[in-house]
Amino acid sequence: MSTATVSDRVFNFSAGPATLPLKVLQEAQENLLCLPGVGASILEISHRSPPFEAIIGSAEADMRKLLNISDDYAVLFLQGGATTQFSMVPLNFLNKEKSADYILQGAWSKKAIGEAKKCGNVNVVWDGSSEKFSRVPTQEEIKPTSGAAYLHMTSNETIEGIEFHYDPNTGNVPLVCDASSDFMHRPLDMKNFSLIYAGAQKNVGPAGSCVVIIRKDLLEQQVAGPHHTMLDYKKMVAGGSMHNTPPVFTIYILSLVMKWLVNDIGGLDKMHELNQKKANLLYDYMDASGGYYKPHAQKGSRSLMNVTWRMRDEDLEKKFIKEAKAARLDGLKGHRDVGGLRASLYNAFPYEGVEALVGFMKEFVKNNG
Amino acid sequence: MSTATVSDRVFNFSAGPATLPLKVLQEAQENLLCLPGVGASILEISHRSPPFEAIIGSAEADMRKLLNISDDYAVLFLQGGATTQFSMVPLNFLNKEKSADYILQGAWSKKAIGEAKKCGNVNVVWDGSSEKFSRVPTQEEIKPTSGAAYLHMTSNETIEGIEFHYDPNTGNVPLVCDASSDFMHRPLDMKNFSLIYAGAQKNVGPAGSCVVIIRKDLLEQQVAGPHHTMLDYKKMVAGGSMHNTPPVFTIYILSLVMKWLVNDIGGLDKMHELNQKKANLLYDYMDASGGYYKPHAQKGSRSLMNVTWRMRDEDLEKKFIKEAKAARLDGLKGHRDVGGLRASLYNAFPYEGVEALVGFMKEFVKNNG
Repeated sequence: MSTATVSDRVFNFSAGPATLPLKVLQEAQENLLCLPGVGASILEISHRSPPFEAIIGSAEADMRKLLNISDDYAVLFLQGGATTQFSMVPLNFLNKEKSADYILQGAWSKKAIGEAKKCGNVNVVWDGSSEKFSRVPTQEEIKPTSGAAYLHMTSNETIEGIEFHYDPNTGNVPLVCDASSDFMHRPLDMKNFSLIYAGAQKNVGPAGSCVVIIRKDLLEQQVAGPHHTMLDYKKMVAGGSMHNTPPVFTIYILSLVMKWLVNDIGGLDKMHELNQKKANLLYDYMDASGGYYKPHAQKGSRSLMNVTWRMRDEDLEKKFIKEAKAARLDGLKGHRDVGGLRASLYNAFPYEGVEALVGFMKEFVKNNG
Repeated sequence: MSTATVSDRVFNFSAGPATLPLKVLQEAQENLLCLPGVGASILEISHRSPPFEAIIGSAEADMRKLLNISDDYAVLFLQGGATTQFSMVPLNFLNKEKSADYILQGAWSKKAIGEAKKCGNVNVVWDGSSEKFSRVPTQEEIKPTSGAAYLHMTSNETIEGIEFHYDPNTGNVPLVCDASSDFMHRPLDMKNFSLIYAGAQKNVGPAGSCVVIIRKDLLEQQVAGPHHTMLDYKKMVAGGSMHNTPPVFTIYILSLVMKWLVNDIGGLDKMHELNQKKANLLYDYMDASGGYYKPHAQKGSRSLMNVTWRMRDEDLEKKFIKEAKAARLDGLKGHRDVGGLRASLYNAFPYEGVEALVGFMKEFVKNNG
């Protein structure tokens, strides 16, 4: 097959791995044989070499700047995705003598709860299943358990398309947040969180890296061991994400995405504005479609990252997905667990792609009304 | 900085991450913006998409062909490197009621033992520390414990540069092998092994992927749980390496390396011949250097992958490393734990690089005799 070019690229609505900034891909491509001044590919250099130390250092420094992360927190680049964090959080902070609070708000928080139960007692402090996970709880509905090791929330449920638009106040109970699918799409007030983790293959990089931001004083709450090295936050912090060989290339791409956020976007306030503009275009059109397109999420909990909706019946949904793909709008099929449609509009997804989708949706109504 | 080109590439003796085949880097570069026929970068496509299913499928099929792996074994692409396997093996097969045998033969097996002790009883069946880890044990020196859950060996110790050139017979005790630094540099007789794992950033891919080959009937020996999902071989086998998002790009590069081994090298017999030729050139020269260059490993245990040696004193070693780097021979510094020099000659490292090194060594003797 011949080489594909930029003009062959489709609008990729995939829920993750997902669209990356074209500028990042171009820089990575240009330097893939040989990093300037280094004499070898980023795929080949030692993780202990000064060039990689500079890369991981700049990734962390830019992330700290963008999210305004103080020295009270450590920033880790780990492996195994959010699913490994589902275990790592309770393995460090929960045991049979303790309990932890979990908000059950969708498919991913359900999995997190499953792993936590292997370590200790879980209090489900709010359960959204009776509303088909169509919203997140209000502040009033979240009642932390006194003495709980932590309270776990999922800031954005990728599958259902619901998102927190406020930071819960959990009083003395440390707040732990799975931010996999909305990490760095807006500014955060870090002081509200004791630990944030994110599988990085949405807004900040390709598959294979996981970011953890952890308050250093939370480490003192670690339960008695022994702790396996790769699952021990204390050892990971002590080793500066390099206890063993980190996923070098993934962190390199992440460092380029951070530079794009700083230099090309101009920070997370600007990013958030753009993300609101993209999601609103789609939600507003659906709200005005007279029920032809029915958003799953309740107003107030609608995700800016994953817009989910249903149509009249499954046959029509299948037709929509098929014709959209032919129109170069790819990845719109909803998750197999819930069906329907999903458009993921992560940071790097362009506004023009949403315009193209809405244009297609209008045509589709005309032809299938 | 301007774009670097192929001619800027140095000879990279790094112990891992390490040199990859130029052809692999070139193909990855060509398609980095957009996989032909797909419309998106390999860094952006869903791991559940048909294009990625084809990639991971071809990676596994080629690996099975190259190593002659039967259906009695599952092949897994996991994350977290060999260090995670140090824990995952005992978490699955060892507990306080059981014991496991470990060969202590260098820095990496020592770390594996450290993690295993967190799960159950460890019998160190052979200890090479009194000989400064300069050789592996003979078959006669390995006495498996009756009833041991498994016996753990390290086929190549990267830091000390010693390697097994035979497969130990462990009778009824399942043999588990950390093959991180010599995986796929030669053919294997899989029936001698119950489980092989390898951090993939040496011979088969970039940092961030770990290959595990496991006999399916070993899964029945799993100790009672609960087992955390990401650390549970049964769940990983059931999910076909895709329980959660795998490191897509790393597996893609690995698939290209497999194609290179099949099509360009012509299989692992050919690869082994070439690796012997490379290592022998260097060892033979050092043996004839009248003690100027002193190989660390004893004959019979010398690694084809990591050639380690000492010189008269540390100042001379430092001078050697500095001048070699200036001569475009990079990454020759020994591991910080043992000092000295190390030349890693993995599969993709070219014969011309060893010729260049030997040429440099001869000149260095003349100038510093």
